[in-house]
Amino acid sequence: MSKIIAINAGSSSLKFQLFEMPEEKVITKGIVERIGLADSIFSITVDGEKKTIVTDIPDHSVAVNLLLEKLTEHKIINSLDEIEGIGHRVVHGGEIFTDSAVITDEVLAQIEQLSELAPLHNPANATGIKAFRNVLPNVPAVAVFDTAFHQTMPEASYLYSLPYEYYKEYGIRKYGFHGTSHKYVSERAAELLKRPLEQLRLISCHLGNGASITAIEGGKSIDTTMGFTPLEGLTMGTRSGSLDPALIPYLMEKTDSTADEVINILNKKSGMLGVSGFSSDLRDIEDEAAKGNARAELALSKFSDGIHKYIGSYAAKMNGVDAIIFTAGIGENSAEIRARVLRGLEFMGVYWDQDANNVRGEEKFVNHPYSPVKVIIIPTDEEVMIARDVVRLTK
Amino acid sequence: MSKIIAINAGSSSLKFQLFEMPEEKVITKGIVERIGLADSIFSITVDGEKKTIVTDIPDHSVAVNLLLEKLTEHKIINSLDEIEGIGHRVVHGGEIFTDSAVITDEVLAQIEQLSELAPLHNPANATGIKAFRNVLPNVPAVAVFDTAFHQTMPEASYLYSLPYEYYKEYGIRKYGFHGTSHKYVSERAAELLKRPLEQLRLISCHLGNGASITAIEGGKSIDTTMGFTPLEGLTMGTRSGSLDPALIPYLMEKTDSTADEVINILNKKSGMLGVSGFSSDLRDIEDEAAKGNARAELALSKFSDGIHKYIGSYAAKMNGVDAIIFTAGIGENSAEIRARVLRGLEFMGVYWDQDANNVRGEEKFVNHPYSPVKVIIIPTDEEVMIARDVVRLTK
Repeated sequence: MSKIIAINAGSSSLKFQLFEMPEEKVITKGIVERIGLADSIFSITVDGEKKTIVTDIPDHSVAVNLLLEKLTEHKIINSLDEIEGIGHRVVHGGEIFTDSAVITDEVLAQIEQLSELAPLHNPANATGIKAFRNVLPNVPAVAVFDTAFHQTMPEASYLYSLPYEYYKEYGIRKYGFHGTSHKYVSERAAELLKRPLEQLRLISCHLGNGASITAIEGGKSIDTTMGFTPLEGLTMGTRSGSLDPALIPYLMEKTDSTADEVINILNKKSGMLGVSGFSSDLRDIEDEAAKGNARAELALSKFSDGIHKYIGSYAAKMNGVDAIIFTAGIGENSAEIRARVLRGLEFMGVYWDQDANNVRGEEKFVNHPYSPVKVIIIPTDEEVMIARDVVRLTK
Repeated sequence: MSKIIAINAGSSSLKFQLFEMPEEKVITKGIVERIGLADSIFSITVDGEKKTIVTDIPDHSVAVNLLLEKLTEHKIINSLDEIEGIGHRVVHGGEIFTDSAVITDEVLAQIEQLSELAPLHNPANATGIKAFRNVLPNVPAVAVFDTAFHQTMPEASYLYSLPYEYYKEYGIRKYGFHGTSHKYVSERAAELLKRPLEQLRLISCHLGNGASITAIEGGKSIDTTMGFTPLEGLTMGTRSGSLDPALIPYLMEKTDSTADEVINILNKKSGMLGVSGFSSDLRDIEDEAAKGNARAELALSKFSDGIHKYIGSYAAKMNGVDAIIFTAGIGENSAEIRARVLRGLEFMGVYWDQDANNVRGEEKFVNHPYSPVKVIIIPTDEEVMIARDVVRLTK
């Protein structure tokens, strides 16, 4: 029995989840918010109850010290020695990391070098890693990358149709994201299907505020919708997804903006927010669409139509599919979106059950029993994947 | 019996084809090249033989005069009065033109106003129209738009997931191109299938140096791969097709270029040329790939993989497909590309015949006889569509 902590550090936040392994039992979890700002907030769940403290937390090291202090204070652990490993979520692993990695000085330096590809995320992830190294220098730590699972994609999937030297010189290729989630649900699907993962063709739909779909053949990612950045692919909450690249200079001229400003609009003011004109939150949009709001209806169509089409596209890529998986906030909870996505896939053997589909956040098959293609809702669990990789790489 | 001339005017060229209608017989065809430059070239086919003249042709009106003079000189017609209609290909009809249109002063002005959306093409098309109006002011003329066929797309297909006002204020939407070709082959497919077009779900693959795929349901375009411009969608000869929009500012910084310069690279130096590194010509690439050139192989994969995936995507959109159509230079002639595209679509009922597929430029079914989904090669004929529309709208 050992205690492993999974960490997801943002620029001013730090999420944690403490596991008892190998049981995969969550002992506690919580979040530190507003790090470096006045009135930082520390929250932790103790015996199922959330306790919150407001205090100034100037940096991530102070946050880590406070976290460890609270773990002993609340008798969640008796001594810091019980923590046998730390797992850190890292967004970008570039082409260097095809798997999770034990963190060394070199690995940390590489994570920081990859900041050019993920300027908003990797520096924050590195800050979290350094804070734990300061406070618990002797506990082994592992970095788990969002991109690593997709490093199995063949060249024809990850390469853009650009001058080839852009790939060699600037690292321009499709990396893909949400890899830890796609990997978790694909492994869980194999368990639920009682078939070896190596024999399965899966389409995993990770649908949250960010959304991506992955074609998984024999347990390996062979194509995914997100690309060089998480902007590519599907219509999302606030992101446009793919569009005609020639629109960038056209929009720069029309809106008198720089290219960076246009991309910022595509990331933050587009997607379902841009189409509906009032919200990026699917629940608001579903409510308004139900009341007859045409733009809300259009936003739902854009979102679900895109998913529906990618499912066809990835089924073609694998010459069929054994199971379609829905996960993450929307995928787990929105019966409406799942219904819109699944309607009209009978041609490829997808027969689903309207009653079975009327659930929220439950691990469940929603296909008809005789459907050749299975459809499974699987709540994702990136934290347990992090804890598993810590055990796998440090024991 | 009447003679109709179909015209495709570029900025320094003018292609023509003279039809006997309603027989749809091609009486002659030819091209004027290097208009406005020294040593312009006029070519015309007389009794199956190509005759070429090199002379200075300063503008499109002179070109039209020369063309008409040669038609009588070679006794292809006895008098100009025999020409009863002129059809002009026009690239962009915006949202104004949902069908071909008899050219009036107003229509001509609208074509010119749409130049903002097609700055390379509409001005040249308008020049061709004006030249014929100068020379044959009393012969009715019709404009046939590349975009018109796609105006039936539903809003969820043509709208981008951008702030909605961009559509209203700047006309930013998917227009689609190659409409005349997609329409021609879909009508021809219905004849060959001996089924009413209204009952068919078709996927039309127009594969040339420019390439686009259209989902055609009941004779109507419901989705297409090209977008606001012909850059979107598939990997093409020199065009990148769709990619992560965030790459534009990244490339601007890395290559020290403006957004327009980057888009120019995406249009002219990317696609199969960029990936292979040596040619945009499919024949060269196929030859090199056969010799084991890995980058040529990769270019073929990128091109055919994209088509394969869009077929899956559009089959999903229509919950199945009755026939897949291949047309245009590559679609009609490359057995290799068709084979790569068709391999691995059995899951959706596509069974094809390797021997039947080994043809060039022939109208032919290449599916197995028992295949639920038919596969048809149909040589396209945009000119006859233009002539038909002239007859339909002016008789």
